[in-house]
Amino acid sequence: MDLLKEKILKEGKVLSDTVLKVDSFLNHQIDPLLMKEIGEEFANRFKDEVITKVLTIESSGIAPATMLGLSIGAQVVFARKKKSLTLSGDLYTSQVYSFTKRETNEISVSKDFLSPDDNVVIIDDFLANGEAVKGLLDIAKQAGCKVVGVGIVIEKGFQNGGKMLREQGVRVESLAIIKSLKNNTIEFAE
Amino acid sequence: MDLLKEKILKEGKVLSDTVLKVDSFLNHQIDPLLMKEIGEEFANRFKDEVITKVLTIESSGIAPATMLGLSIGAQVVFARKKKSLTLSGDLYTSQVYSFTKRETNEISVSKDFLSPDDNVVIIDDFLANGEAVKGLLDIAKQAGCKVVGVGIVIEKGFQNGGKMLREQGVRVESLAIIKSLKNNTIEFAE
Repeated sequence: MDLLKEKILKEGKVLSDTVLKVDSFLNHQIDPLLMKEIGEEFANRFKDEVITKVLTIESSGIAPATMLGLSIGAQVVFARKKKSLTLSGDLYTSQVYSFTKRETNEISVSKDFLSPDDNVVIIDDFLANGEAVKGLLDIAKQAGCKVVGVGIVIEKGFQNGGKMLREQGVRVESLAIIKSLKNNTIEFAE
Repeated sequence: MDLLKEKILKEGKVLSDTVLKVDSFLNHQIDPLLMKEIGEEFANRFKDEVITKVLTIESSGIAPATMLGLSIGAQVVFARKKKSLTLSGDLYTSQVYSFTKRETNEISVSKDFLSPDDNVVIIDDFLANGEAVKGLLDIAKQAGCKVVGVGIVIEKGFQNGGKMLREQGVRVESLAIIKSLKNNTIEFAE
């Protein structure tokens, strides 16, 4: 997705060989028009599938997932990293380790919002080691959903999450795949 | 906003005299089309103001804030409740007590994304005691922004946040104001 790659080149900051900061449009400040284009691009990538629900995880997955949901007319569910007083009742849960926050979170989705009738696309902002997506796949499996694929805004192609998922037969659609961040330079995969 | 009130009456669950669960369209599952309508309604309420930035807090404020941003062509910034590796550099911070999660969070916004030139609207899903909005107002004040108003999806009119803010001269636009949740019944203010 050229618009996204241009934005990454223009505003992304390489913090190390493995960390790319895109806080100006995706993870802290959000560019709503870009999110709309991203939602429409995901819709286009999965246009051969009937999608009944978009599954993501708080917080940075919410904006692109909501724009995909708007584009295809599907409801969006975001997994919670913490329990709140109103997240009660029966829950699907899974364990997710976050390398950027250096902690394990138990993520939860209410059983009210995923069922065996659902065809789900999983959306997230970044794919690195694939921990968050693995947790969401686990929750979808517990719910008996069919997962039609995974949509990622930025995949770090030099980490193993994408390879691991594709080897398991999961369809992964990444809008930008970064090959390397070495020498303070952002290099995309073809 | 009639569409929102109908949705609250149809899907909202009264958990106690003070807690309303709207997990099916706002706090856990998100209805993207309703969020778009909510964003457009906020844009309409604030149409007499020039807004350069929408400020909210993760996670449930993100979807309505992004839709407002899309509607008016403004960037959205969401305050973080936790620090991540990539949220580095100079931060504005404030303390926010959450009654639903029974904990105090330090919320943070990077100094990169708010400046004295900004005219800000603050968006949140719920207004109860006003703790989150107070924290966001504090951050906007630290940044030297002008806050043109606060947009709330659901205000609990029987709690003191709305009164406290309006007495301070803050413009509060709530799309639905709940007068009472007593007797397991949702009653709206006029």
